[in-house]
Amino acid sequence: MHLPLGDQRSGRFYGKDILSVSQFSRDDLEYVFGVAEAMRTMVRHVGTFDLLKGKILANLFYEPSTRTQSSFMAAMQRLGGSVIPISEVRYSSVSKGESLPDTVRTLECYADVIVLRHHEEGAAAQAAAAAKKPIINAGDGPGEHPTQALLDLFTIREELGTLDGLTVTMLGDLKFGRTVHSLSRLCSLFDVKLRFVSPPQLEMPEKVTKELTARGVAFSKHAKLEDVLAQTDVLYVTRVQKERFEDLALYESLKHAFVVTPAVMAKAKPKMALMHPLPRVGEIEPSVDDDPRAAYFRQMECGLYVRMALLAMVLGKA
Amino acid sequence: MHLPLGDQRSGRFYGKDILSVSQFSRDDLEYVFGVAEAMRTMVRHVGTFDLLKGKILANLFYEPSTRTQSSFMAAMQRLGGSVIPISEVRYSSVSKGESLPDTVRTLECYADVIVLRHHEEGAAAQAAAAAKKPIINAGDGPGEHPTQALLDLFTIREELGTLDGLTVTMLGDLKFGRTVHSLSRLCSLFDVKLRFVSPPQLEMPEKVTKELTARGVAFSKHAKLEDVLAQTDVLYVTRVQKERFEDLALYESLKHAFVVTPAVMAKAKPKMALMHPLPRVGEIEPSVDDDPRAAYFRQMECGLYVRMALLAMVLGKA
Amino acid sequence: MHLPLGDQRSGRFYGKDILSVSQFSRDDLEYVFGVAEAMRTMVRHVGTFDLLKGKILANLFYEPSTRTQSSFMAAMQRLGGSVIPISEVRYSSVSKGESLPDTVRTLECYADVIVLRHHEEGAAAQAAAAAKKPIINAGDGPGEHPTQALLDLFTIREELGTLDGLTVTMLGDLKFGRTVHSLSRLCSLFDVKLRFVSPPQLEMPEKVTKELTARGVAFSKHAKLEDVLAQTDVLYVTRVQKERFEDLALYESLKHAFVVTPAVMAKAKPKMALMHPLPRVGEIEPSVDDDPRAAYFRQMECGLYVRMALLAMVLGKA
Repeated sequence: MHLPLGDQRSGRFYGKDILSVSQFSRDDLEYVFGVAEAMRTMVRHVGTFDLLKGKILANLFYEPSTRTQSSFMAAMQRLGGSVIPISEVRYSSVSKGESLPDTVRTLECYADVIVLRHHEEGAAAQAAAAAKKPIINAGDGPGEHPTQALLDLFTIREELGTLDGLTVTMLGDLKFGRTVHSLSRLCSLFDVKLRFVSPPQLEMPEKVTKELTARGVAFSKHAKLEDVLAQTDVLYVTRVQKERFEDLALYESLKHAFVVTPAVMAKAKPKMALMHPLPRVGEIEPSVDDDPRAAYFRQMECGLYVRMALLAMVLGKA
Repeated sequence: MHLPLGDQRSGRFYGKDILSVSQFSRDDLEYVFGVAEAMRTMVRHVGTFDLLKGKILANLFYEPSTRTQSSFMAAMQRLGGSVIPISEVRYSSVSKGESLPDTVRTLECYADVIVLRHHEEGAAAQAAAAAKKPIINAGDGPGEHPTQALLDLFTIREELGTLDGLTVTMLGDLKFGRTVHSLSRLCSLFDVKLRFVSPPQLEMPEKVTKELTARGVAFSKHAKLEDVLAQTDVLYVTRVQKERFEDLALYESLKHAFVVTPAVMAKAKPKMALMHPLPRVGEIEPSVDDDPRAAYFRQMECGLYVRMALLAMVLGKA
Repeated sequence: MHLPLGDQRSGRFYGKDILSVSQFSRDDLEYVFGVAEAMRTMVRHVGTFDLLKGKILANLFYEPSTRTQSSFMAAMQRLGGSVIPISEVRYSSVSKGESLPDTVRTLECYADVIVLRHHEEGAAAQAAAAAKKPIINAGDGPGEHPTQALLDLFTIREELGTLDGLTVTMLGDLKFGRTVHSLSRLCSLFDVKLRFVSPPQLEMPEKVTKELTARGVAFSKHAKLEDVLAQTDVLYVTRVQKERFEDLALYESLKHAFVVTPAVMAKAKPKMALMHPLPRVGEIEPSVDDDPRAAYFRQMECGLYVRMALLAMVLGKA
């Protein structure tokens, strides 16, 4: 069931799909983050609670993703609900040629909400069009991964206390990084300056920068982190994915060009947040982990609270 | 533990295995369907309830089957119980050469009931002979899939209000379709006329038709759906499985010979049920889905209630 | 978090890792076994109970192991807790090159305790060094599998009523069998005589026998079971693993040299325990299963109680 998100505060997400960051107004985000904060308080004080007792989540992953899958599973379990994990789709009835709509219509006979990870852009919208129950997009190929963008923004708010007046620098592969595209779009709802630091081959796509320009967002492109590091409040590092390169020599030459070390951190603001969607494969040295500004594991924890909030909201319990 | 099903009404399935449709008398079926209806009422009103709280189901799948696996998992979770999913048997200790009886005797140390899907006929009976705890057969190769037949019959009863006085037409691959064999046998307990429509290469096996003759069931074979459509109360469509054909040209020629379209439905009774065990790969056009007679997704939901009923019964809680 | 196990009785394992049998004193073992017995009583009377309600276990298996995985899952579920199963590590973010410490630090954002099976020796200690939450080693390659050794010892105690004054005979592959190495070490805490029966190619390694000598444990090596069978209180049989042999002809010649049959059991003590870590592939004939001394399936059940005890203890609830 795909309905535009309404604007009445109470129950505004009840029965809705979560497909794209473009569904969310600034007011919606404040609401999500308020619920996520309440989730954090409850988890820290009592561990779990029975808000979604008796509800079942179908975790439908056509592509593997330990982190996202585990995070949604834990979110549902910490709310007292149950999970049906379906992660071996390549061996399942789907490999017998079943369509995504049929699979989704079958699963909603058993479950109350479906989290979908799929390799094709638009898959989540297609599932939502077929389903009567809420669909949460957990990544649709080169498309979107809205819960990742929401947790990134929630993390910034938790780390720095605000989302306005910040300079957010994104570093690494900005061309293929679905994460930084969605985060950039969400940032446009706030008073944020964006700094894009990447090799020329991996620049932020024009599609995204045009949107930012249309919305009046201040942004600039840079080849070196040093140009913007001293002004950066949030340094968001991404993985340069080997599988994106046809020319492996090019990959090797770029791989370590944007590595965050203690020496880099020494030149950064004393109060800032170093973030990464993980997994990392060398972009941030482990010796940085003990720096209080290293926020990437706290970012994982924020993912749990945001996903708990979204599940409770679409099931009408927040 | 494999005991013949007793005939005392109260607790008649307690501790018993569910291995074959031949275990069930007409009276047994009425009892199962009564419990399944109670499950439906409870799910629709309260979602889940703690009838099997503290019980553990081992879902032991040697062959993948998303639908059956998810259905049993949801059934157990909606009754407040837990599930141990074991679906990667090819990577597990079994691939070290462990026998099925040893695997089952190990799992019953942890679980209270075992659902088994296996590629070999007779596997469920072999498991039941070794186990002290109830075994539910979720398909043993070319053998049986009794819970599928039970849910099919329950769906007919829910859709048409009765199981007597009906004409049930089975369409497609009747030779290899385990589902239609079991359903035909179960139908023989009621006042049902059977119509078998298939290409000559895929006719209902003599083994089944001999049984039907011996039980005095009225049945007939047809090459065209048109011959029987106007009298049909239940049209049960099956998938023509590519993997059954050595001659792929033959497969291609037959594949679409029995496709249900809106034009076909226009010639059917105004009150009838169109069923399919799913997944479908073209046998029923998606444009038929909105027809109120299209019962295949409601059939999936009926599967949940029947499996809830069976789990509760063998664990002595129904 | 890797802390040496303390010696105060109350809460002595709270927040601790379980990495090696060498962590356990005789007094510690008595405590574990006391809790395990309480678990058994509770499971037999009420099935499950909510001691760990609201707690989440991450079951992180880099190598498949149906038995260990299912056993920990059932243990957590019987205590009212939930499980995040992660068994397809080869397809997950780890295959994108993520380090074990990063994976563990991510999972502890979602879960309260992590059970780890890994193919590399020392992996559990590495995970424990990175993690804030308790790590339980469920086998680290050729390293240790401490919960197996604990359940073996608990089984002996349950079967024979004591751990002192016994003759424990280990049979089969004593060279590569991680299980018999750990069990031998644990036995050294009690007044036990050890008898090692193996082909010359598969003898107990000198590393282990030196430790036993240093601790003053009475042991001897034998080529034939007949030499020691009449004095044996516990006969612990191991699987001769085909994959350990480069010379398959040698494997075939040894495979059946140490098979336990009813004829062998006829020469054993009337009160003794025949044990095996399972899976077996011919080392014990199925015709022995009905012998009351055949303890291997009861051994599986003891595994459930010991793992329930360990989970409750490290989470501060025992």
